[in-house]
Amino acid sequence: MVYIEKFGHGGDLLTARQLFGKDSAQLLDFSANINPLGPPPRVMELLKDQLESIVHYPDPAHRVLKQKLAGKHSVSSEQILIGNGAAECIALAILGLQPETVGVTYPCFSEYEQLARAFGASIKPLLGREENDFKPERSEILQLIANTDLVFAGHPNNPTGVTYSKEELVEMAEQAEKTNTYLIIDEAFIDFIPIETRITLLEDLQRWKQVILVRSMTKFYAIPGLRLGYMVADPTLILKLQAKQVTWSVNQLALLAGEAVLNEKEYEEATITLIQEQRTYVKLAIEEKLGWRVFPGQANFLLVRISADITAAELQWRMGHKGILIRSCSMYQGLTDQDFRIAIRTEEENQCLIQALIEVSKEGNPS
Amino acid sequence: MVYIEKFGHGGDLLTARQLFGKDSAQLLDFSANINPLGPPPRVMELLKDQLESIVHYPDPAHRVLKQKLAGKHSVSSEQILIGNGAAECIALAILGLQPETVGVTYPCFSEYEQLARAFGASIKPLLGREENDFKPERSEILQLIANTDLVFAGHPNNPTGVTYSKEELVEMAEQAEKTNTYLIIDEAFIDFIPIETRITLLEDLQRWKQVILVRSMTKFYAIPGLRLGYMVADPTLILKLQAKQVTWSVNQLALLAGEAVLNEKEYEEATITLIQEQRTYVKLAIEEKLGWRVFPGQANFLLVRISADITAAELQWRMGHKGILIRSCSMYQGLTDQDFRIAIRTEEENQCLIQALIEVSKEGNPS
Repeated sequence: MVYIEKFGHGGDLLTARQLFGKDSAQLLDFSANINPLGPPPRVMELLKDQLESIVHYPDPAHRVLKQKLAGKHSVSSEQILIGNGAAECIALAILGLQPETVGVTYPCFSEYEQLARAFGASIKPLLGREENDFKPERSEILQLIANTDLVFAGHPNNPTGVTYSKEELVEMAEQAEKTNTYLIIDEAFIDFIPIETRITLLEDLQRWKQVILVRSMTKFYAIPGLRLGYMVADPTLILKLQAKQVTWSVNQLALLAGEAVLNEKEYEEATITLIQEQRTYVKLAIEEKLGWRVFPGQANFLLVRISADITAAELQWRMGHKGILIRSCSMYQGLTDQDFRIAIRTEEENQCLIQALIEVSKEGNPS
Repeated sequence: MVYIEKFGHGGDLLTARQLFGKDSAQLLDFSANINPLGPPPRVMELLKDQLESIVHYPDPAHRVLKQKLAGKHSVSSEQILIGNGAAECIALAILGLQPETVGVTYPCFSEYEQLARAFGASIKPLLGREENDFKPERSEILQLIANTDLVFAGHPNNPTGVTYSKEELVEMAEQAEKTNTYLIIDEAFIDFIPIETRITLLEDLQRWKQVILVRSMTKFYAIPGLRLGYMVADPTLILKLQAKQVTWSVNQLALLAGEAVLNEKEYEEATITLIQEQRTYVKLAIEEKLGWRVFPGQANFLLVRISADITAAELQWRMGHKGILIRSCSMYQGLTDQDFRIAIRTEEENQCLIQALIEVSKEGNPS
């Protein structure tokens, strides 16, 4: 039973508005994992100023943004593919590499399975164990890589927020090379991790011909309505995936925004600090005031298991009527109908969330 | 030999800027077929006002725009698929229907062949005859439909601008039904034809289970940078194609713009009148002042054959240095290196074009 996830995801404000009879301004959205600071103000100004550029086609080769990202990551432009959201990147990987079997580590972002099936692959599932915070066992994921054509690994993983260690990532990449399997590491939420503790294969990506890193620009920079993501991989792989991309699939304003956000160093630091602090606050508050289990996520969201006589769906329903949207997680393979996910937002908003959770939990079982 | 079409299309201003050392404001773009009036001012205002909506995900089901388009065309919402540009619609048709052989009537929009090949189909070509303005022979296109799994027909066709009669369209649709072939009628430019003379299968589409109409909203409403197109077809077909669409592939501002442009009746009429008048002017001016052949197109562009000692590529090069971009057509199968295409723009802009063409043609052969 889900309410706002009728299309498989959080952040569906139209459905929420219809369900709860509120307009968007009255809804506090913890169901989508978007930077609560909103887009950088300078970027919004630029988009306003450059709005008239929509009268022209976007650059079909994304030349300027590719170059900027290449500079940022110290890779070549040929190692980058810009996508219409990370979701298009994932789709292009499947379309371009045509895996027969796709390894999926559950619980995870539902698009891995959905897109793999849509484009004709069969799924080999690997379920993380609860006692390991749903992170797949080392030996099991290496086996999955050996036994499939392509494996998805979220890092940090959605909806758990857990990450792999450098040793684990290297071991996975080595296994991918050895067994001729593509390894897609979905780093859509990695920018929320402080640079000092951020672990990625990006720095020595040239060692790995089978590894593709997927990044999103819509979550960290709060522009999900524009759609923007990218991939970093070996140039020959990139060419293969690019061949499946529809011309102009990345729109002009997304390109402009992508180019502009890369200058926003202060905004980046403020975001990371805010998320760190507030994630600690929200985790402790839920553990202490509600006694519910919070998984040790490293991203801008937290997975929570309710230990009370109420389902996540019912909690979502009641919270929705208070104008607060949470993400029910019962549809994630491996999770239960007591699990929900919340984004980390600003201090004030998080306090509202905690207050509302306490109120709703005290109302007890409705049936 | 082409200059600005290095990525296969016109309208590539970045390449043009690099080639001709001018900025966008100094370039008059006749190489992309965009409404010269620009986007409706009220729609631009709305986008400015609603820019902050990019902080939310777009509606993954495109509910509001689907409903509005369904109302406009007197069809059901279930008959409509909204795409990230008409190009995504074409890609989804191929991905969803998985034709082994695709019939392409040349010369035509290059994406038919490119996307069909990208997604594994083989091409059966049909070349229109020059004496018939490159429109395929009736018997030949019926045969093509009989012998392939899917056929593309531009109506009006790009780059020729020629259209089919109602009888021809009905005959093609009947053949498609009879031979179990999908018929994709690309009506991306049909909105430029006055409603009184606009011929389409839309009104009795429920008769045809194999026919898909593709429409673009970016050309007529001058928002190519935002990307927006749609398809109309039988609901079961639409479901099949939708299953291949990447979630959120249509961005929030495209949806907002799409909803808003449908109220712009005066703008629509002004556009149609302008294009009609100016197309007549440009055609006559080229025929009379340059003596070149202009094909009898019905859209917002014209195909021209140079009868002078200069190639279209050379013409493009010289015009580019005057700040005017035209579309060289040598890369279109069936056309020659003397063919070029120009968009119809405003009276003043068209006069500039004609003047520049006259000047350049007088310079004679460079070699």
